[in-house]
Amino acid sequence: MTIKTIGIAGLGLMGGAVAMALRRAYPDVRLLACDIDESALAAARADAVIDEGFADAKSMIPPCEVVFLCLNPSIILRFMEENMHVFAPETLITDLAGVKTTVVSFIEANLRADVDYVPGHPMTGSEKGGYFEAKKCDFTGKNYILTPLKRNKPENLALIREIVRKMGFSRITETTPAEHDSAVAFTSQLCHVIAAALIDCEPDGAIIRFGGGSFEDLTRIALFNAAQWTELFAENREALLKRIAQFETSLDKLKALIGSGDRNGLQSCLQTVRERKESSSKAGFC
Amino acid sequence: MTIKTIGIAGLGLMGGAVAMALRRAYPDVRLLACDIDESALAAARADAVIDEGFADAKSMIPPCEVVFLCLNPSIILRFMEENMHVFAPETLITDLAGVKTTVVSFIEANLRADVDYVPGHPMTGSEKGGYFEAKKCDFTGKNYILTPLKRNKPENLALIREIVRKMGFSRITETTPAEHDSAVAFTSQLCHVIAAALIDCEPDGAIIRFGGGSFEDLTRIALFNAAQWTELFAENREALLKRIAQFETSLDKLKALIGSGDRNGLQSCLQTVRERKESSSKAGFC
Repeated sequence: MTIKTIGIAGLGLMGGAVAMALRRAYPDVRLLACDIDESALAAARADAVIDEGFADAKSMIPPCEVVFLCLNPSIILRFMEENMHVFAPETLITDLAGVKTTVVSFIEANLRADVDYVPGHPMTGSEKGGYFEAKKCDFTGKNYILTPLKRNKPENLALIREIVRKMGFSRITETTPAEHDSAVAFTSQLCHVIAAALIDCEPDGAIIRFGGGSFEDLTRIALFNAAQWTELFAENREALLKRIAQFETSLDKLKALIGSGDRNGLQSCLQTVRERKESSSKAGFC
Repeated sequence: MTIKTIGIAGLGLMGGAVAMALRRAYPDVRLLACDIDESALAAARADAVIDEGFADAKSMIPPCEVVFLCLNPSIILRFMEENMHVFAPETLITDLAGVKTTVVSFIEANLRADVDYVPGHPMTGSEKGGYFEAKKCDFTGKNYILTPLKRNKPENLALIREIVRKMGFSRITETTPAEHDSAVAFTSQLCHVIAAALIDCEPDGAIIRFGGGSFEDLTRIALFNAAQWTELFAENREALLKRIAQFETSLDKLKALIGSGDRNGLQSCLQTVRERKESSSKAGFC
């Protein structure tokens, strides 16, 4: 399949970064985008990042062979309800939603027989949102998760993998929506909850005079978009609550070791942690 | 007071970084160092970072007008017991220990009347230790804490402040050892406990395939030196346990908001967190 036209629904941080990466990877492909924010569309046209911008998705979708849904989970559902009839036959749809169980089950249940949908999630982002931050969002070396459907055509799955790799991602993992949501509840959402708790628990801003890097590292992501993360936490509530409990068990263990004065036990636990971290760093996380 | 000779006891990561910063700030001052690791002394001489290295502190100390104690807390106590009689009269001693209450009270109680001691703590470091990592440890723009003694001569406190600033630190805070220990239990030790708990609670290393930056940010410091951090946790146990409890209160609050399904309450809490983080970022933490 030779791609001539790709559409991007939602030209925010991730949609903008996808457009920029596609422009570099596929200079001959025509790139369309739709967004309610006309300033983002105008800027992307001025940057030559897209060829044409649309306020209305119904005008953008028909000529596209591939459509990227770069929208928040709740908006994706509404978008697909409203636009399912507009896609050309054989269109390949993919999304970037950070929660997969709810999004994938909804879209799969409502998917037309003559289009395909390969769910995805790029493991990257920024605490700052919007098209105008997209340039700083570099995909090189990052992780990408796919949760393919049983009905996906092998050539469509292969095409999405090729596009993802050409955009710069280095490690693609295929898994189920449930496993994705459990893993991301740990690597992403739990970390945001911890950062939020760290900021929430100390009202004295002057504490930053005592900062030496660790506190800054652990709370950088607390500059999150509150509405977006509320939605992610809520959509993935069960998995996230399990991950919080899992973390609390280890925090309790460490607290008990510190409180007991058992220096050998504490050191042995910290040494095991250090070795585990070292071996996962060597495994080439990026 | 014109300084001719400065001594550095302990040429590890911080001692090495202090030597390098002093060399740049005071090119005409003679720099001496003592360490049990002869390879560090040899490398520092070869790098022209120090003028002379000593295996024995008793040979290094007498000609120094200023001595930096760049040793772990427990070693500082032994070092001062063994070497208190060796300092020349009017020597100005300072230390870099990450816990202050125990170290300062011990040294103050044992301090000769004819020497002075201004306790300090540079709020920087690295998860990697040793002289050979010292080059990467840049003091520029970092925080420095001093916990002066009532008996400190004003000119000695002024001299330490001048040296600290010339080494590159941008914000010097004077406080008490107890306040230092409480603040650092939060900004540094609690963060290390959280990072350790995050690594401890998930035995499956393959989780890093789902990493998108947050998990990596929160666990970078888990590459700590287990022995050193066991000592810091143990020496500051009471303050650290209070800070863990304080963090747990906020974590419980967030967990309850997520579990209750109260999206408005959750979003309002996350928004307050974001605003607090934003204003402290603007206050110029570095």
